[in-house]
Amino acid sequence: MDADGTDTGATGAAPAADIERRLGRLEDLLAITGLLAAYGPLVDSGSADDVAALWTEDGVYDVEGLRMGSRDDVRTMVLSRPHQRFIESGSLHFMGSPSITLHGDSATAICESLLVLHKDGGFEIARGGAHRIRLVRTTEGWRIAERTARALDGSEEARGLLRP
Amino acid sequence: MDADGTDTGATGAAPAADIERRLGRLEDLLAITGLLAAYGPLVDSGSADDVAALWTEDGVYDVEGLRMGSRDDVRTMVLSRPHQRFIESGSLHFMGSPSITLHGDSATAICESLLVLHKDGGFEIARGGAHRIRLVRTTEGWRIAERTARALDGSEEARGLLRP
Amino acid sequence: MDADGTDTGATGAAPAADIERRLGRLEDLLAITGLLAAYGPLVDSGSADDVAALWTEDGVYDVEGLRMGSRDDVRTMVLSRPHQRFIESGSLHFMGSPSITLHGDSATAICESLLVLHKDGGFEIARGGAHRIRLVRTTEGWRIAERTARALDGSEEARGLLRP
Repeated sequence: MDADGTDTGATGAAPAADIERRLGRLEDLLAITGLLAAYGPLVDSGSADDVAALWTEDGVYDVEGLRMGSRDDVRTMVLSRPHQRFIESGSLHFMGSPSITLHGDSATAICESLLVLHKDGGFEIARGGAHRIRLVRTTEGWRIAERTARALDGSEEARGLLRP
Repeated sequence: MDADGTDTGATGAAPAADIERRLGRLEDLLAITGLLAAYGPLVDSGSADDVAALWTEDGVYDVEGLRMGSRDDVRTMVLSRPHQRFIESGSLHFMGSPSITLHGDSATAICESLLVLHKDGGFEIARGGAHRIRLVRTTEGWRIAERTARALDGSEEARGLLRP
Repeated sequence: MDADGTDTGATGAAPAADIERRLGRLEDLLAITGLLAAYGPLVDSGSADDVAALWTEDGVYDVEGLRMGSRDDVRTMVLSRPHQRFIESGSLHFMGSPSITLHGDSATAICESLLVLHKDGGFEIARGGAHRIRLVRTTEGWRIAERTARALDGSEEARGLLRP
């Protein structure tokens, strides 16, 4: 858990290098949170290039039945007919708050999601998903190196993605 | 994207003014995140004054078919019969994680939302929404200057709100 | 509201003790956010020990009809047949962004939630919930001391949990 190991109980002034390290850790957490929060609005507005730029150049997005292995693949998915049909009718790729673990220049984020589609004048949940996301720090900032998503339909594989 | 341009890779101690600037940026992001997270619980509990106080005195809340232009207007909406009927039956104004961009003393937050209503003993999604929110720093802290919301029903206008 | 009272408008360098205090506050907010974000993925993957460890040893989890009063009780709930049936079919305990108020070594978080179940090949919202969570700082980090949850079915009790 992220909360562990943080010396928030310290009193008095900390040395400058310690301040720097703690500040960097918070910046990392908020940069990753922001990156992941951007996905839904970008993908539901059809912003194909911006969605692709959330990944590294050779980043992987593995959804059951579809394995994308580059920004080009992600862009192609956003521009594909099935995805365009979603957004033309109205869709929300609603991501839950991520549980983030930092390991220096890489990080793991775990979260759940709802795909909500506008259909026949109403809104329905088409899919509940589990996500395990590996991120890396690049010269452009944090990017997704690999994201694996599975429907939470009772499969052990989906539950496995959610374990610490 | 928020992640960009943050010099999190720096090593060693940074000058005091730089620490101050980075700390202020994180405080801004978390203050805005907290302000937006407060909306759902406040509006679903009928806390009309507290909902109104999330906006500036002359803040705008533009939902299709209704344009509120002040805290008074927002308060009136919360106290209105339609909204009171929602909360008397049970409602969740469920807001997704915001994607926030800071520009000094103003900021833009983009997010999606689900309006879930308790009905006939069950819960259903009555609306999926797109939100573009302009915030300003005031002497009271960050406040909403303008929030535009549209149903994600396939309209180009709604998708436009979600674009960077 | 969290945004209030934060002197983010300061210019120039702040004294070291002030930096330390502001940094500690941000660390507290993100530790609590991370702790609460971990709940859904852990409980939906059946990680009973990890779910229990989000609470203090004698932490309370009060859901209507069930009052757990320890980590053991929480662990037992996760391992119970009703919960195991949820996760074997597919479930999402989808928690909304928390509105957090810090009071030194304790804190209050308020949020809403959706329980989404996979059923008959589709996904449906089985419950919309209101949560009021009291947290304490322990030697292990922030932990839940008491969490009260009620269905947002129009009851005044549920709405009361969401008020400031």
